[in-house]
Amino acid sequence: MSHEQVAAVDLGSNSFHLQIGRVLDDQIYSLDTLKEPVRLASGLTSDKMLDESAQQRALATLSRFGERLRGFQSGAVRAVATNTLRVAKNARVFLPQAEAALGFPIEVIAGREEARLIYIGAAHALPPTRSKRLVIDIGGGSTEFIIGKKVEPLMMESLYMGCVSYSLRFFPDGKVDKRRLLDAEVSAAREVQLIAQEFRQTGWTETAASSGTARAIADLLEMNRLNPGGAPGITRDGLMTLRGLLLRAGSVAQLRLEGLRADRIPVLAGGIAILSAIFTTLGIERMIYSEGALRLGVLYDLLGRYHQHDMRDATVRQFMRRYQVDPGQATRVRQTALALLGRMVDLTLSEHAGERLLVEWAASLHEIGLSISHSGYHKHGAYIAANADMPGFSRKDQERLSFMLLGQRGKLERVNSIPVSDALWRTVFCLRLAALLHRSRDDQPLPPFRLRLVNGDFLMELPLAWLQDNPLSAAALADEVQTWSRIGRRFRIRRRSALEGLG
Amino acid sequence: MSHEQVAAVDLGSNSFHLQIGRVLDDQIYSLDTLKEPVRLASGLTSDKMLDESAQQRALATLSRFGERLRGFQSGAVRAVATNTLRVAKNARVFLPQAEAALGFPIEVIAGREEARLIYIGAAHALPPTRSKRLVIDIGGGSTEFIIGKKVEPLMMESLYMGCVSYSLRFFPDGKVDKRRLLDAEVSAAREVQLIAQEFRQTGWTETAASSGTARAIADLLEMNRLNPGGAPGITRDGLMTLRGLLLRAGSVAQLRLEGLRADRIPVLAGGIAILSAIFTTLGIERMIYSEGALRLGVLYDLLGRYHQHDMRDATVRQFMRRYQVDPGQATRVRQTALALLGRMVDLTLSEHAGERLLVEWAASLHEIGLSISHSGYHKHGAYIAANADMPGFSRKDQERLSFMLLGQRGKLERVNSIPVSDALWRTVFCLRLAALLHRSRDDQPLPPFRLRLVNGDFLMELPLAWLQDNPLSAAALADEVQTWSRIGRRFRIRRRSALEGLG
Repeated sequence: MSHEQVAAVDLGSNSFHLQIGRVLDDQIYSLDTLKEPVRLASGLTSDKMLDESAQQRALATLSRFGERLRGFQSGAVRAVATNTLRVAKNARVFLPQAEAALGFPIEVIAGREEARLIYIGAAHALPPTRSKRLVIDIGGGSTEFIIGKKVEPLMMESLYMGCVSYSLRFFPDGKVDKRRLLDAEVSAAREVQLIAQEFRQTGWTETAASSGTARAIADLLEMNRLNPGGAPGITRDGLMTLRGLLLRAGSVAQLRLEGLRADRIPVLAGGIAILSAIFTTLGIERMIYSEGALRLGVLYDLLGRYHQHDMRDATVRQFMRRYQVDPGQATRVRQTALALLGRMVDLTLSEHAGERLLVEWAASLHEIGLSISHSGYHKHGAYIAANADMPGFSRKDQERLSFMLLGQRGKLERVNSIPVSDALWRTVFCLRLAALLHRSRDDQPLPPFRLRLVNGDFLMELPLAWLQDNPLSAAALADEVQTWSRIGRRFRIRRRSALEGLG
Repeated sequence: MSHEQVAAVDLGSNSFHLQIGRVLDDQIYSLDTLKEPVRLASGLTSDKMLDESAQQRALATLSRFGERLRGFQSGAVRAVATNTLRVAKNARVFLPQAEAALGFPIEVIAGREEARLIYIGAAHALPPTRSKRLVIDIGGGSTEFIIGKKVEPLMMESLYMGCVSYSLRFFPDGKVDKRRLLDAEVSAAREVQLIAQEFRQTGWTETAASSGTARAIADLLEMNRLNPGGAPGITRDGLMTLRGLLLRAGSVAQLRLEGLRADRIPVLAGGIAILSAIFTTLGIERMIYSEGALRLGVLYDLLGRYHQHDMRDATVRQFMRRYQVDPGQATRVRQTALALLGRMVDLTLSEHAGERLLVEWAASLHEIGLSISHSGYHKHGAYIAANADMPGFSRKDQERLSFMLLGQRGKLERVNSIPVSDALWRTVFCLRLAALLHRSRDDQPLPPFRLRLVNGDFLMELPLAWLQDNPLSAAALADEVQTWSRIGRRFRIRRRSALEGLG
């Protein structure tokens, strides 16, 4: 194999997953995935024995995974089993068969180890924060809670409640009514109360939810715009609306919502009950969704190299290499775009940190589309940014980056889904102007200039002599004035004969 | 600059172009282009003097190009002027001003040198043939004819007729009637007769047309399906239909056709007259369109390294590196896909050479989409193949390659614009099966198998024991049977307990 590869197998209580990652510059990019809905937890009898049919489903899945893993070194694979195999009394008999089918050892990991790995996965998938973050992972048989800072987990707990076990226990025939839902929520709230005080004492400022239940609920809330203002992730209000819709429908199967996947139907009611108990008991208003959890954590843990810094910076560097970006040009455009932005807003204020980062990423990556073709390269760049696997970037980050790359040149009408007054346009303006001014790709100094925002108009002052000496740039600036006016935004250029005061 | 760059400036009789290419492995990929419709030929007075207004337009354009070329070494830039400056009596006075505006020397090149460069450009843009090829380039003021073999021009001529000069001379007010069109065609036919006999003696088997006139006419014929059977390029029948429509409309401006660009309106009537005279006088039935012509020839000539072999092979190798394709996996899939195809058709027959090449390219490049993301990588690969700048590949080649990459896995309904009986499907079948069998990316030998086409059904025989030992592959093959049945094509798998005769 020409690339270093690592693999994680996750024998979850709901699904089994195999994820193979390739390692590039200490980052992991997904290379192949397999997922099968084994529903192990539903094969657990009341006396905690894994029944024969669940064992057979599990072994069949593991033998398919095993075929895929043939040829892997043992140090490059880690297989972990979670709650159902933690509690199944016949796990000791079952595990040797499972290991034979997979061809690799399987570790039944404790809830706290599971929590640690989940946190590592989330920390590598989410934008960095300086403050503490609570990560919650609702599995099929258990739910993990971790407070951490950067890549370091500080407090970890695992509770015996999961979407499969709760769905079976409280909604055995799939029917949902007020009474059953309340029972499930009260039961979950009791569990959460066991850890609530300790967690509140440690404190956190941001909450992220990972795993299939969180993803399914976030998708439902986003695709049906149930969150106030169409916010992303999971909000308390959105979840309460979904809960109301579920009660009215009488079962998950009868929910008529966009984005409800068939394989989620049997386990969603339990997931909603647990999540709403968590929101209430811990007083949470909003959770973001994290793509990374247990499997990504296993892979980074196998690799043994954690990213202490902003994962997005490593991704931007990796992408510049991967798409053969000319680093000199990226630097010129980045510096100029930031200088332009700095004339319009005070970059030392934290409220502009997001804009600053966006301009930096977009300028660094504005030419990635050239790797496909010069013709329409801004569109190709936007395609890549929208579709690529970019460790550390949220979906929202990638959307905004894609918007910037599309808007870096050409008509603006086509990217006109954003209101013309949105602050995003000024970052687009900075990128366009910087790319225009550096089209010759050389280190000629830029002319002195002034730039201000006046009632939303971009007002730029440039030396007359420079415009005369640089007719291509002058013509492109004149086109630029037209381009902005077509979307209803004014860009005015004043030619100044004297240089004094400019620069 | 971190990449080697070369630039070509073409002071044509119709438009001026600047093309900057970056050099990767002796291939040239476009990095930046500028085009301005200077219409130099229309500024030529009856006594062959370039008038003041045309000179001013030319100088303004050249000073804009000059800004873009600042910082280029003189050896990396070649600027060539063609027919209008060949014939303008005041060219000697004008040229020093033009060179000052551009910042680089400008060569007025002879018609034969122009023809040589055009041929080099076309030879690097077109699929290779073993037989002789005629390349025709209708410029604004002259038309070049070259017969060549591979990258070697064998016979070159330049005739004094061009789309600008003919449009001005025969259709000065834009009106087109039978009389004027016939006059123009007769005049052009007389020119072509000067070279017809000599060219016929040398002989050729394939004709390609380059330049803006050819592109505009090919686009009109293709987008309005004027060629018989919707064939690509320019056919004699399609051109005659277009000629009839033009006569009925009375002017190019009143032609109501898809794809007619405003900047072509003033010069298209002359172009149609010249092209129809060429078809008739040389007895041509069909021309393919070549993207590459003068500028690409100038760039490869500057580089001084010509590709004697199939340019497409070099492009495939370059793309495998650029998109970090795992070469081991590409080789495995390529060998297996060819072996599969070889069971169904006789690969030694030249009629299957196209299929063979397509399978080779597609297998070599089937994982390029992984560079964007594992999720949906077949779609990303198809996007790249459809949009990339791929030297040597025709548009049709890229469409078929893109189709293969999209069809390499997942549902087939989505690529179902091709009739289910089309031979392309069996190449898709070979790629899918090869990718499926090598999913574990290792060098495990494949099982012995038989494969036949029986009344359009794919019939495969595989050892029972192998299917039992490889449950992931067995499950994937069963899915594959379903996938093909959904588009109405049967794939039958027979499990054989005895291996004899398989393999």
